[in-house]
Amino acid sequence: MLWRTTSGCAKNGFNTFKMLSARNLSSQAEAPVVAPERQQTQIQGIDKEPDMPIMNTSIPGPNSVKMIGKMSEIQNSGAINVFVDYEKSTGNYIADADNNMLLDTYMQIASLPLGYNHPAIINVLKDPKNQNIFVNRPALGSFPPLSWVENLERSLLSIAPKGLKQVQTMACGSCANENAFKAGFFWYNNLQRGGKPPTQKDLESCIMNKGPACPDLSVLSFKGAFHGRTMGVLATTHSKHVHKQDVPTLDWPIADFPRYKYPYEDNLEYNKKQDEDCLKNVAELIDYYNESKKKPVAVMIVEPIQSEGGDNLATPYFFQNLQRIAKEKNVIFIVDEVQTGLGATGKLWCHEYFDLPSPPDIMSFAKKAQTGGYFYKDSLRVDAAYRIYNTWLGDPIRILYLEAIIETMRKDNLIELNRVVGEHMLNGLKTLCKEHPHLINSARGLGTFNAFDGVDADVRDQIVGKLKNIGVLTGGSGSKTLRVRPSLIFTKKHCDIFLDKLDTVLKSF
Amino acid sequence: MLWRTTSGCAKNGFNTFKMLSARNLSSQAEAPVVAPERQQTQIQGIDKEPDMPIMNTSIPGPNSVKMIGKMSEIQNSGAINVFVDYEKSTGNYIADADNNMLLDTYMQIASLPLGYNHPAIINVLKDPKNQNIFVNRPALGSFPPLSWVENLERSLLSIAPKGLKQVQTMACGSCANENAFKAGFFWYNNLQRGGKPPTQKDLESCIMNKGPACPDLSVLSFKGAFHGRTMGVLATTHSKHVHKQDVPTLDWPIADFPRYKYPYEDNLEYNKKQDEDCLKNVAELIDYYNESKKKPVAVMIVEPIQSEGGDNLATPYFFQNLQRIAKEKNVIFIVDEVQTGLGATGKLWCHEYFDLPSPPDIMSFAKKAQTGGYFYKDSLRVDAAYRIYNTWLGDPIRILYLEAIIETMRKDNLIELNRVVGEHMLNGLKTLCKEHPHLINSARGLGTFNAFDGVDADVRDQIVGKLKNIGVLTGGSGSKTLRVRPSLIFTKKHCDIFLDKLDTVLKSF
Repeated sequence: MLWRTTSGCAKNGFNTFKMLSARNLSSQAEAPVVAPERQQTQIQGIDKEPDMPIMNTSIPGPNSVKMIGKMSEIQNSGAINVFVDYEKSTGNYIADADNNMLLDTYMQIASLPLGYNHPAIINVLKDPKNQNIFVNRPALGSFPPLSWVENLERSLLSIAPKGLKQVQTMACGSCANENAFKAGFFWYNNLQRGGKPPTQKDLESCIMNKGPACPDLSVLSFKGAFHGRTMGVLATTHSKHVHKQDVPTLDWPIADFPRYKYPYEDNLEYNKKQDEDCLKNVAELIDYYNESKKKPVAVMIVEPIQSEGGDNLATPYFFQNLQRIAKEKNVIFIVDEVQTGLGATGKLWCHEYFDLPSPPDIMSFAKKAQTGGYFYKDSLRVDAAYRIYNTWLGDPIRILYLEAIIETMRKDNLIELNRVVGEHMLNGLKTLCKEHPHLINSARGLGTFNAFDGVDADVRDQIVGKLKNIGVLTGGSGSKTLRVRPSLIFTKKHCDIFLDKLDTVLKSF
Repeated sequence: MLWRTTSGCAKNGFNTFKMLSARNLSSQAEAPVVAPERQQTQIQGIDKEPDMPIMNTSIPGPNSVKMIGKMSEIQNSGAINVFVDYEKSTGNYIADADNNMLLDTYMQIASLPLGYNHPAIINVLKDPKNQNIFVNRPALGSFPPLSWVENLERSLLSIAPKGLKQVQTMACGSCANENAFKAGFFWYNNLQRGGKPPTQKDLESCIMNKGPACPDLSVLSFKGAFHGRTMGVLATTHSKHVHKQDVPTLDWPIADFPRYKYPYEDNLEYNKKQDEDCLKNVAELIDYYNESKKKPVAVMIVEPIQSEGGDNLATPYFFQNLQRIAKEKNVIFIVDEVQTGLGATGKLWCHEYFDLPSPPDIMSFAKKAQTGGYFYKDSLRVDAAYRIYNTWLGDPIRILYLEAIIETMRKDNLIELNRVVGEHMLNGLKTLCKEHPHLINSARGLGTFNAFDGVDADVRDQIVGKLKNIGVLTGGSGSKTLRVRPSLIFTKKHCDIFLDKLDTVLKSF
């Protein structure tokens, strides 16, 4: 197993980003690196796992096929991989309807931070003092539970990005971004009115979708971006046509996002030019929409890594300058950490790698964070009740789980583990890219948030399919990328199984 | 207590609707009416209630005020009524942070069908076989649990409106309607293309918000409507400016919705003309947007009762003709039962009162249904995977709860109870309107989904506030309406307390 010996040989994502950052990444420098071997023995939730994947059938097996057939009487079931036995699933292993146990590096589309049936999560469920939260779903904005402020303090507020002290919960990632846009629009309009409230006439006409209180503002997004599927955020999603086909949309600016050549270090000049060209494009687009189009850009939204659109990374330099442009042009700068957040990249939040001189105006989250929502600057607080509101505003059950997840992450040093295992994984992927250049290339990523490209879509799809059939679940992103989104209890042992199986698959072509 | 003696005197909502319906409401005629007294003894979940509201402080009390202060460090907390002690809350009584116990006729904005801490809900939580669903949140569209099809069959599919056999779950009401719009757009575009798929070029350009695969279609909505707060559905929401202020919107048709004069029977000619005028307006608007505006109307969305915009009811005649117009003009007809659904109006779904000749194309739900989502016709099934999709697609915990709720509704005959208690309530409200015409008027509603108007906003607000301070929680809707949205375990006993307290408040002016 080659990757066992390559540690430190190939330049990894962290070093690259370190080099490119204007300053050193302070929080990384401070963190002691613990050997993954040592950590493995300490972490909870993996003791009931099998040693290896156990495969009895191909995927989907006959039982899943039967259930998919039943499901398709109710709705299109074409996206179902397998039916899952969640009782038997454990740690990093997902059990399906056919008694297969797969190593799951995809984890419910990057949304389960502690794998399956983690004891810390079960404890939340079984704690009698939580019963009242489990059985009485509140309208959180109007009738919050007695413990709500403490729950928020112990969960979301304890992981707030530096400088962001306000938080809003929402049910999902799409609603998080939709409402983040609204918060941005409110701020921008208030600025345009010089802090004065709109007139009564303007308020009345906005009820009928008319007048200056329904302003023709825009949101700048990036090619390859994914921010959700409801109509506002869908207008900023540009990763695959299946998301957008046949839906009316908005004429909003769509900027270029860097597309680097890998290995990154071998293409420095080209990659640097990508940053410069894209930044220029952003600035020009804002001016064009502000001045010629008369659809002023109020908000800009960007993922730290384009996570659905092909695992496209960009440098700290790019993000620092993006933020600078946003500031200069009075555009609210939203960082969408729905997929990259909660330790997935070896930092609590991926944008910590960028060493931004000040926090983003808004940072949205969902998936691993269990609840949708966003952190925001004090200056973006709404000036009246009910402006950001809906019946449920998320779900306090998910906040209880998040508390336990954060506690476990701290106790078991899981972000640290992610960083170390991720480095090991990326080294392995780079080695495999070198060995199979006719099949795969461009290994990249941060922490365990890693990816590589197939030479084309067909090869990528074949790799994902073959891996599944020998017991490893991965995902696709973009047109030809394979993405890995494991839990935070994914250790070097799991990583080596993944790399072994990938090696086997690549050799089978 | 006058309303105890007025039963049968005042014409109620059902009789009015019966008269106006083209045919008799068959399901109503078939259902045996059980005396509410008999039912009260059978229903679960109210045995631990106090006999009457218990008030120690004004609302919000000092403990709630303190907590609201803490909450406002995190976000605008202006919409918070009280902090709630969900452990002490029981049945129809909500306990707050100051040891007050209020009779709750608002039930978390119409979203708790069985009140607080209902034994059937607690049993779901405590059932060991449900643990795996509680602790492993799946990406339902790709990795559903083994029991998922059965869970759907025992919950949503068992309450599907006649003729709708397809169902899609979503996390909330806004996402339900957003995706219902998309399903409508897909159908409409497919029709326009004569069933052919779009070209590869069109698909690629839609990723960049351009071309015929991003068509300029519109959704027709109604003045006074509320369908949610994300950008697509917000463009169809027209109840209050606080929802819409400063958010960019879409130029979509907004039709008149009937505004009746009450008592309904005393204004038949005026009210009938409202129906005719509004229907004419709908037909004309569709033609105008189809032909002159070149923004074809693909979808029409309507609430059976405008539930946020002032409890505006319309007749079966109006809805029957609305559906006819939609059919004639190839417009998808969506009935939004987010607030009116799951027995709230004395029928399982409110649109059953309308005796439509065929089911609506789509019917959306959330709130009392615990999960967002929509039922739809087979002809609206998507033709490819991932077109209607997101990571979580709702939450299976909520489906488990819904199963138990439906079972309880059947066992305890709760829709029947709602109908009988609602009739009793409406008679009482009509009596009070007659006695206090200088304060309130226009009592109206179906089942316990009742409302009346204050003579102005200030009087309505005063009534809501005074009721709260003597132990009854109600809500506002529209500019001057008071709405009642109790649980389904709200009995005649609770109703009489509510009417008594309201009488007290009205006499205090």
